[in-house]
Amino acid sequence: MTRGKTPRRLHLNAFLMNTGHHEASWRLPESDPYAHVDLRHYVRLARIAERGTFDSLFLADGPQLWSNLAQRPAGALEPLTLLTALATATEHIGLIATASTSYNSPYNLARKLASLDIISGGRAGWNIVTTAGAEAARNFGLAEEPAHAERYARAAEFLDVARKLWDSWEDDTIVADKAAGVWGDDSRIHPARHQGTYFSVAGALNVPRSPQGYPLLVQAGSSEDGKAFAARYAEAVFTAQRTLADAQAFYADLKSRTGRAGRDPGHIKVLPGIVPVLGSTQAEARAAEQLLEDHIVYEHGVGRLESLLTLPAGTLKLDERLPSELPPESAIEGAKSRYTLVVELARRERLTVRQLIARLGGGRGHLTFTGTPEQVAGQIETWFTQGAADGFNIMPAVLPSGLDAFVEHVVPLLRARGLFRTEYDDPRQTLRERYGLPRPAHPYPTPAPALV
Amino acid sequence: MTRGKTPRRLHLNAFLMNTGHHEASWRLPESDPYAHVDLRHYVRLARIAERGTFDSLFLADGPQLWSNLAQRPAGALEPLTLLTALATATEHIGLIATASTSYNSPYNLARKLASLDIISGGRAGWNIVTTAGAEAARNFGLAEEPAHAERYARAAEFLDVARKLWDSWEDDTIVADKAAGVWGDDSRIHPARHQGTYFSVAGALNVPRSPQGYPLLVQAGSSEDGKAFAARYAEAVFTAQRTLADAQAFYADLKSRTGRAGRDPGHIKVLPGIVPVLGSTQAEARAAEQLLEDHIVYEHGVGRLESLLTLPAGTLKLDERLPSELPPESAIEGAKSRYTLVVELARRERLTVRQLIARLGGGRGHLTFTGTPEQVAGQIETWFTQGAADGFNIMPAVLPSGLDAFVEHVVPLLRARGLFRTEYDDPRQTLRERYGLPRPAHPYPTPAPALV
Repeated sequence: MTRGKTPRRLHLNAFLMNTGHHEASWRLPESDPYAHVDLRHYVRLARIAERGTFDSLFLADGPQLWSNLAQRPAGALEPLTLLTALATATEHIGLIATASTSYNSPYNLARKLASLDIISGGRAGWNIVTTAGAEAARNFGLAEEPAHAERYARAAEFLDVARKLWDSWEDDTIVADKAAGVWGDDSRIHPARHQGTYFSVAGALNVPRSPQGYPLLVQAGSSEDGKAFAARYAEAVFTAQRTLADAQAFYADLKSRTGRAGRDPGHIKVLPGIVPVLGSTQAEARAAEQLLEDHIVYEHGVGRLESLLTLPAGTLKLDERLPSELPPESAIEGAKSRYTLVVELARRERLTVRQLIARLGGGRGHLTFTGTPEQVAGQIETWFTQGAADGFNIMPAVLPSGLDAFVEHVVPLLRARGLFRTEYDDPRQTLRERYGLPRPAHPYPTPAPALV
Repeated sequence: MTRGKTPRRLHLNAFLMNTGHHEASWRLPESDPYAHVDLRHYVRLARIAERGTFDSLFLADGPQLWSNLAQRPAGALEPLTLLTALATATEHIGLIATASTSYNSPYNLARKLASLDIISGGRAGWNIVTTAGAEAARNFGLAEEPAHAERYARAAEFLDVARKLWDSWEDDTIVADKAAGVWGDDSRIHPARHQGTYFSVAGALNVPRSPQGYPLLVQAGSSEDGKAFAARYAEAVFTAQRTLADAQAFYADLKSRTGRAGRDPGHIKVLPGIVPVLGSTQAEARAAEQLLEDHIVYEHGVGRLESLLTLPAGTLKLDERLPSELPPESAIEGAKSRYTLVVELARRERLTVRQLIARLGGGRGHLTFTGTPEQVAGQIETWFTQGAADGFNIMPAVLPSGLDAFVEHVVPLLRARGLFRTEYDDPRQTLRERYGLPRPAHPYPTPAPALV
């Protein structure tokens, strides 16, 4: 199953979010402040990404309403619902939904993901999140958020149960013998029979095995727990890396962990997030970035930063640096890797709080590639060829215009360099195949027809 | 808000199920045994129903795989997922999904239903079920099914929480003031702050209030608990009634209960289920019915009947009647009203087990109207005008052909008699408006702009 003969190709995922990843994007004249609840906006984005022969598109999510609606668009269509609608508006592109292992039941979520995989003809992906924060916990009967390690323990068991459910039908369970009056072969059904710490699930799933067997498994936590989980389960990983050296170290570490977990390191794809801000000259690109920064409401950003850093309100001053004393990552129960990334960025570049907010406003800690299409394509090639990435999670600052510009101006350069597909290879290719991953074999196929 | 001046019009709902409601329908030459997982099949059905200007279409569901796959198609696409795909393939028709209050979280389900309502432009409905049976319970960490009364108590609290969530955004929360940098008005957000017996939900929903405010609330339990619940919450009720007299009694009882619950009895629509089996002559219709009965595998039916009646396997004999001693409805924890309906049908018509299975095979206890289009239209008019129904839940024995025949041959007769719409009145009408129901007002609108 090695793919040594095929030239190594870049994978591109379009991370769709409202009017764009820049927090001030909704204030631009071109932006529709109601876009986040408008199916037509997302259909348009999906079709742009498909025109650019992207591997997939992706929606983030969390089961809570972030407070302070004044600052930017809040609330969103539920990802599995929205992606199902997009499945009918597209033909090729993968559809990756975020869903939480802490606040779903394996039976319901496995069923919905299998249903999307069937409806889309094998294009479903699941971004597995454990969901940080007390706000979410309090919407599901808990007083406080579960501890980080406990969330990951539950996530691991969730995956084990979900895979039992996805494998509860063999691929050829449906017999459809009309003459004999036999529709299905009950001997090919394997109930989950799971009794664990967090879940007890007895039966088989109530939907047949889907085209991919199960959805592409994606993960994005970069904490220690997150990396251990990814090595064991993930087939693609979204990550925020700010420098080539950091990205190379993360890449090597994750591939190595995956090998040590007994899996082929080629079967986990690493996709750092980048925010491309394009201009036909570098000055034009920088001006586009400046325009966005001018629209940031900095007072909002201070509150968000204090919340991330677990500091009391009023601690941070806009034109001063972060306090020298901050809690260690181990004391953070929320988004650990994001916490460290933000603190390190501020320290490394000696940023004031205002400067830090401006940098985070562009992509919440992800790397912004500001420049001409040639410069951005060059940076992508460097990261891809120098052991930092198998592809990229493209996070346009403004949507749809930023995605359109990337597809119009950067994708052709990547194609010309032989780094990226010029068309979708086979219209019936599944999302997992597009990422160069094998379809999961059924773990216990019935060897021969049962004697009745 | 009364509609006294408008002529009273029939409401029609298309109950879609695999290859049809007759259990042997999948064995007919015209039927596709993979239809239950084929989006194209459901798109075709939805478009036929829309051509027939139906009010809505509906999908049943339960979170378990029924055992014995040999007998008929099992497993199905998850209803909310499938209906979202159908929303993009249709323009007018309502989309009613079954979802369980026993095996969902209010926050997740309220979000998904609101998302479908937004995506479909106000066409979402929710068939509220409490889900009988130990098989489902064991897929969600329970050893046995919760008691009937407890399931309904949880359902009532679920509805209270869901409505708090659907009302957590006022209709005009989004301000979208780009110049001032103010997207939303936080004073118009009302967190659920619910602490109850079954649920504790603190926050606001993370999606704005949807076109209908919340989905059309539909219910189908006809037990005492079910009717009490319907009187309090339901806007449309699906019911199985075998005789005009039974249907009239049910109709009068439910309207009266709704009035006693402090609601307008006109704001609950009663839709008995009917299985139309059509022929251009009565003999032809009867032959079509006989063809289906000839395809029943009676041995399968015996097991299902024993399970429904909570009898040990092997108790029932095909050519004998039901035992004279059967448990009372009060001893049944599962589908109470269905149990009583089946027992009464067998006793009233002195059916053998084989005859009972043939009758149930056609619509699982719902009334079969076998005859010419004129006869079926006449029966519909009788029930509608004689206080037995506000409309009908149409359950074709074979799909798509049975739905197509109903739309081609019965709908024109209903239109000619002035009983049914000839076209959709206003393309922007919501599902609730189509059923002649008012949009729920927001319970606590903010009276004036908040002073900050």
